[in-house]
Amino acid sequence: MPGMLMAMGGALDMRGPCVLLREFARLAGGADARIVVLATASDLPASARRYAEIFRRLGVRPAATVLSLTRRPEAQRPGPWPAIARATGIFFAGGNQVRLSAMLGGTPVEAALHAAHARGALLGGTSAGASILSATMVAFGQSGPTPRQAMAQFVPGLGFTRRVLFDQHFRQRDRLGRLLLAVANHPGVFGVGLDENTAVVLAGARLRVVGEGAVTIVDGHEMTATNVAEVEAPAPAALANARIHVLTHGCTFDLKRRAASIPIVRTASD
Amino acid sequence: MPGMLMAMGGALDMRGPCVLLREFARLAGGADARIVVLATASDLPASARRYAEIFRRLGVRPAATVLSLTRRPEAQRPGPWPAIARATGIFFAGGNQVRLSAMLGGTPVEAALHAAHARGALLGGTSAGASILSATMVAFGQSGPTPRQAMAQFVPGLGFTRRVLFDQHFRQRDRLGRLLLAVANHPGVFGVGLDENTAVVLAGARLRVVGEGAVTIVDGHEMTATNVAEVEAPAPAALANARIHVLTHGCTFDLKRRAASIPIVRTASD
Repeated sequence: MPGMLMAMGGALDMRGPCVLLREFARLAGGADARIVVLATASDLPASARRYAEIFRRLGVRPAATVLSLTRRPEAQRPGPWPAIARATGIFFAGGNQVRLSAMLGGTPVEAALHAAHARGALLGGTSAGASILSATMVAFGQSGPTPRQAMAQFVPGLGFTRRVLFDQHFRQRDRLGRLLLAVANHPGVFGVGLDENTAVVLAGARLRVVGEGAVTIVDGHEMTATNVAEVEAPAPAALANARIHVLTHGCTFDLKRRAASIPIVRTASD
Repeated sequence: MPGMLMAMGGALDMRGPCVLLREFARLAGGADARIVVLATASDLPASARRYAEIFRRLGVRPAATVLSLTRRPEAQRPGPWPAIARATGIFFAGGNQVRLSAMLGGTPVEAALHAAHARGALLGGTSAGASILSATMVAFGQSGPTPRQAMAQFVPGLGFTRRVLFDQHFRQRDRLGRLLLAVANHPGVFGVGLDENTAVVLAGARLRVVGEGAVTIVDGHEMTATNVAEVEAPAPAALANARIHVLTHGCTFDLKRRAASIPIVRTASD
């Protein structure tokens, strides 16, 4: 069975309780987790080493392996890539998601990552590392709540899920418009916008929210009409009857039933 | 085993020998083929009916079923969709590929199409109907041989293959630039540019060319560098070490070995 995916919205807490990275370590196997940190999205291997230090601080005993592939030929080495082959958790650090796709796409490293996912390893990442998980991802784009034709560039991601397009820094960078645009183009893809320091864990068809902000889910399955095939940039695109869910820590969403579950919070007076 | 895909570059011969449609009918089962024509990409159900007439003229006995779904709620009917469920060949007529993704994405019709592909039915189409087969497709874009940042909009297609991005009207509309741009963004995706009245048949990992023009394959697996993650629109994007193949009728290409095979043509003097 394919492993879980954990997509994080960027700007993670790395000094305090580290709720998201702690959850990642737990899902990867806790104290015995064998974690690989991929630093490809950024030019800062130091940031990747910092993730490795945090995982140690959080009680993971085996030292995390940092792979700072910064040039494509490094990823073209035929392998084997033993750290990836034995990993229980693989974490993509943030930066630029197109660096990840352009650097790793079609390489033995990409094949090793897909093999790891297929055998059950947890794959996750933050910011660019969240975007890259989708089959089609946002490369870059403009802000704003209104979907406008061509306001964002979508390109192929590494494709660990075809059903979900993750966007990040969602509320902080005002990205609802581009998420709606993606869903209007293909309403079979769930748009999932992740606020900073907030994540979803996707296990099978079940999404679970973790963290301090919100996760915005746009479900276009019941959309009745859109003019996105006709309007020209930069005109706004119309769409009718999309559903939206705003979920917070502990909420879940079932992609098959397309139903959200919001836990009841009992107050002191109950 | 998933069925074959047949992607055609548009402007099909529909009066003469109909080489491409004849090959589609043959691969779908010949005289006994049960063919569905989807007219969703265009507002012209007449053109879809014309395909049905041609398939009859080519010797297919069961009358092809024309599904002219032109509004999304029609595709949202829960089904079953018996014509799709029993089809041996499903043909997407041309028009606008975003109409197809926006109309069918996330509907019971899309699910039925994926089920048909999974059980072995042939899926094919021309122009927009070729684009829609890919996981990430070109929605629209500019012409020219040079890849320029954001010169094309890529959006999620229906996704019967993740490994190939089909582009169409390729030589006639001068579309090499946007194919290179797609491959630079994710070199694990083969860019396949189809000239008009020219097609590829994808069976497993094997592509075979059919028709009067050429098929241009861009293979980025050995790309050593690109600046596509950094350049801003409309600057051109650099990429190093992509391979290109130009293949004609009878040539094949193996996606696993990434090797082309060009048949030897013996001349009269041999």
